[in-house]
Amino acid sequence: MDKAIVSLSGGMDSVSLLGKVLHENDYEIECVGFTYGSKHNFYENKAAYEVSHHYGVRYDKIDLSLVMAHLKSDLLKSGGEIPEGHYEAESMAATVVPGRNMIFASVLAAIASSRGARAIYLGVHSGDHAIYPDCRPEFIMNMKMTILCATSGRVSLKAPFIDQTKGSIIKYGSAIKVPYYLTRTCYKDQPIACGKCGSCQERMEGFAENGIVDPIEYESRVILPKE
Amino acid sequence: MDKAIVSLSGGMDSVSLLGKVLHENDYEIECVGFTYGSKHNFYENKAAYEVSHHYGVRYDKIDLSLVMAHLKSDLLKSGGEIPEGHYEAESMAATVVPGRNMIFASVLAAIASSRGARAIYLGVHSGDHAIYPDCRPEFIMNMKMTILCATSGRVSLKAPFIDQTKGSIIKYGSAIKVPYYLTRTCYKDQPIACGKCGSCQERMEGFAENGIVDPIEYESRVILPKE
Repeated sequence: MDKAIVSLSGGMDSVSLLGKVLHENDYEIECVGFTYGSKHNFYENKAAYEVSHHYGVRYDKIDLSLVMAHLKSDLLKSGGEIPEGHYEAESMAATVVPGRNMIFASVLAAIASSRGARAIYLGVHSGDHAIYPDCRPEFIMNMKMTILCATSGRVSLKAPFIDQTKGSIIKYGSAIKVPYYLTRTCYKDQPIACGKCGSCQERMEGFAENGIVDPIEYESRVILPKE
Repeated sequence: MDKAIVSLSGGMDSVSLLGKVLHENDYEIECVGFTYGSKHNFYENKAAYEVSHHYGVRYDKIDLSLVMAHLKSDLLKSGGEIPEGHYEAESMAATVVPGRNMIFASVLAAIASSRGARAIYLGVHSGDHAIYPDCRPEFIMNMKMTILCATSGRVSLKAPFIDQTKGSIIKYGSAIKVPYYLTRTCYKDQPIACGKCGSCQERMEGFAENGIVDPIEYESRVILPKE
């Protein structure tokens, strides 16, 4: 059976992706996640572990803290406070970790090559495009070519959610019973989701759009008005 | 002054590259190297440190051991013996670390972006093309595009030796007084270069071609005949 590797952060996009890949394909699936010094890493990694257990798939957590320690971002423990408000807001740009997805994709492709896996899956979607340059279609297209060159055509990068919204991912994921109650989206360093950071707001909007109750606990469930 | 980052392994290609970039440009140069569990890492990193001191430039060593522990290669401490013979020989393929340059380039670009550097320099050359897919021109071209996308056009990948041979690099480097006596090329886990691995053989050929005495110590200086 062909093998594929799914990038599993523990957030709702990558968990939906895992559900989708398992639902639609006949691959042997292995998951890889990262710990890299972000404020929410502990809770995110825990979610990834629980989700991999739910689906009965292998999960390896790779430590990139020593690399990311050289980068600047408010998402990291070394950075400033996580801003509150909408994801597309200018203030959220401070939470970008430069080249994070590029580094993740490169490492995943190298692991896929070492393990004889044919594909790697990333859960990037259209809501990421505004602030993350390495989640945009032009990045994905070039990264795909780069990985094909680096692996002599053996590993293919796939990002099936690239043109989808958070809302459409939740709609699909709910239909295939993705365990959203196990996922972690909030950027803050606290066990309960804050409901106020851009990441929480985007998630709450996605559920509200579908008329589905988000099964996780929040400190606040108020969706802020967009300016 | 514009800033650029040079990937400095401590081998003769990257040291020649550092010499060239300092000789030909007006950049503020910072060097970044990696330790990743290869058999020769200790000696290579030491060489990089000494070379950066020689040129008076900043040098940071980034630890990728926890990442590379997931990859298979005889170059790594976790792998088998380093083969002896020519670099292009089939046996040398076992020393390829899958995606190593792709991971290095991604990390360097992210650091460049964090530090406001405009360019990253890699010392890949034509002798690397045979066994390393992520040193070939098509890889470099796509990686360059990938990095431009990931950094919103702020960081450019440069590989000025991409079409040059080891011999032509040594010819140029000797003319600009690159401190080859400080460099480390041998793949083996020993202080003195073995002279028998593909990496040593390729270096010795490059010096012999130019009629220049290689200033480092070797266990054996016999250049093996090509089959």
